[in-house]
Amino acid sequence: MFKAEIRADTLKGLVNVISTLIDEVKFTISPEGMTLRAVDPAHVAMIELNIESGAFESYAADQTEIGLDLDKVKDVLKLSSSGDIISMEQDEGYGRLIFRVGNITRRMNLVDTSSMNDPKVPQLELSANIEVPVSELQRGIKASENISDHIALTITADYFELACEGDTDSVNLKLDKSQLTSLTVSDGAPKYCSLFPLDYFSNLIKAVPSDATVKIDLDNDYPVMLNFALAEGKGSVKYLLAPRIESE
Amino acid sequence: MFKAEIRADTLKGLVNVISTLIDEVKFTISPEGMTLRAVDPAHVAMIELNIESGAFESYAADQTEIGLDLDKVKDVLKLSSSGDIISMEQDEGYGRLIFRVGNITRRMNLVDTSSMNDPKVPQLELSANIEVPVSELQRGIKASENISDHIALTITADYFELACEGDTDSVNLKLDKSQLTSLTVSDGAPKYCSLFPLDYFSNLIKAVPSDATVKIDLDNDYPVMLNFALAEGKGSVKYLLAPRIESE
Amino acid sequence: MFKAEIRADTLKGLVNVISTLIDEVKFTISPEGMTLRAVDPAHVAMIELNIESGAFESYAADQTEIGLDLDKVKDVLKLSSSGDIISMEQDEGYGRLIFRVGNITRRMNLVDTSSMNDPKVPQLELSANIEVPVSELQRGIKASENISDHIALTITADYFELACEGDTDSVNLKLDKSQLTSLTVSDGAPKYCSLFPLDYFSNLIKAVPSDATVKIDLDNDYPVMLNFALAEGKGSVKYLLAPRIESE
Repeated sequence: MFKAEIRADTLKGLVNVISTLIDEVKFTISPEGMTLRAVDPAHVAMIELNIESGAFESYAADQTEIGLDLDKVKDVLKLSSSGDIISMEQDEGYGRLIFRVGNITRRMNLVDTSSMNDPKVPQLELSANIEVPVSELQRGIKASENISDHIALTITADYFELACEGDTDSVNLKLDKSQLTSLTVSDGAPKYCSLFPLDYFSNLIKAVPSDATVKIDLDNDYPVMLNFALAEGKGSVKYLLAPRIESE
Repeated sequence: MFKAEIRADTLKGLVNVISTLIDEVKFTISPEGMTLRAVDPAHVAMIELNIESGAFESYAADQTEIGLDLDKVKDVLKLSSSGDIISMEQDEGYGRLIFRVGNITRRMNLVDTSSMNDPKVPQLELSANIEVPVSELQRGIKASENISDHIALTITADYFELACEGDTDSVNLKLDKSQLTSLTVSDGAPKYCSLFPLDYFSNLIKAVPSDATVKIDLDNDYPVMLNFALAEGKGSVKYLLAPRIESE
Repeated sequence: MFKAEIRADTLKGLVNVISTLIDEVKFTISPEGMTLRAVDPAHVAMIELNIESGAFESYAADQTEIGLDLDKVKDVLKLSSSGDIISMEQDEGYGRLIFRVGNITRRMNLVDTSSMNDPKVPQLELSANIEVPVSELQRGIKASENISDHIALTITADYFELACEGDTDSVNLKLDKSQLTSLTVSDGAPKYCSLFPLDYFSNLIKAVPSDATVKIDLDNDYPVMLNFALAEGKGSVKYLLAPRIESE
């Protein structure tokens, strides 16, 4: 059983973030809320999303699973303005989810989740971390777009840097410790730096609400871990992105 | 002779509605106003439009006909803001219509109307009718777009329904009698229902001004008749759309 | 040496005008300001642009040359809002220009200017000239777009006319002396008229700031010269466009 109401803009925020990585998803539903864990088809990135029941206008659920095609959910979102309430109800006899927006009823076949295994989220101990307004990252990414396919992230005891080196041109976003919400590094190395594919990083960062703060955990030639809040703090996203190891 | 001035937004409203069906049209002009009757090339839909001389800022005409390419009239509309006045004058010696917007004069060759016959508008007695804010229909159509090519319209003594059934998903807009401006059904049958091509219905409904009320006349496996006002009540549109009869 | 700061909207105005003609350009820089002279690859039009140092928020330069790819400068402009300050600094050791916007540093390889010769701007004595708000020309051009590839410009003692004649339709923008900022003609002929390619004329006129006044110098079957100010009067543009001589 699953029956809930959610604000259109809250649902849109969730869908935008997840669909940067994957279109068909499985939500694991419990009385306390919903969770989702997914890797992209190329196994380069992983997302873990948690939404408390308090992020919904109303919420009632047993333990269940729901497989959704996010492109169809986007169609439902197009019918609503940001303040509208969207209701969702599992139609267990038919394997469908029923959406209601205003006077519209939209019945949607669920996606088969039997072959969707929850990926294991690795426990990583990363040596350097910062918190930064996502708007800075969004500008850094926009500047990098015609320069190269990869970006380097660096954290030292003094600054965070996003750098993109092309054959002729380069882009550099450098934020001193004073421009960051927080900066912590372990004593192991003078600087921590890894290289990442721009497209994955860019798609995610663009989907983060522009007033959010992102926590970035980094190490040398290791995956980066990004954490940020959704749904006014009632939801959270953890995103892991594999590094590109430069052959030498 | 034909010479008139019209507000750009009024002309735009007329052109938007007509061009959902056909591009080259014949206006029949009299001292009292203009009328147009046209069927689309596939003979699936028919439009009848009447505009009183009072819809114009100024108006002077004898009995005449004018054939226009609406794509060219749209080009003229692009030169004007909504409050602008567009003047039109028949240039009989040259078979042209002269548009003036601000300091621009646009001479437009008229389309030959000799082969354009006025279709006869059938007199239909349809058993059920409602009046409904077009904004509800616009949302129902938007919801139907990726579901199926056809929609079913139904009227009973209690409600109006727009339904779209796909192979896996479905959409349903249901409005109770209390949510409609009016609802009248004859005693002949418990419900009246016909199936229509979504694209024709959608193109028309999208072109109706969003604050308009549409009257829908319906019967079982019969054409639907839509009536609505334009030009602040000084113009009216009747639109007939053939049903799709499902083979059994 | 070259180091300057400029408002993003000022730089955007310059780039928009120049890039209607050519993408890779050479700026000649002196302590007093910057100049640019260029012809398009087809040798149909020529532009001369002068920007005083006062158009910049700060400015320090020796005599030098800088070759830029304007598409890359547009990428930098996309990172900034109109009130933002963009700083530019020549990195002489590396043949690069360094742009800074907010916390972003963008290093851009300079284009080799050794094969870019400054074209000679012909000294023309044209018999008729007007000054006209560019917004009128912008509307005249928009009206001409689907009519013909050429426009005729005419100046008499009484009026200015932009005319576009197609096979069936025509467009005409006529401005009386009283509607122009100024009108001066020499006594040599009753009217001065030349024909020009619409695309060149249109691209330039669309790039002129919409509140500008354009000075047009015209003669019979001669190039037209357009002059207008940029950067709140601290910059000026001279644009020459070759006529199309109709064979008879």
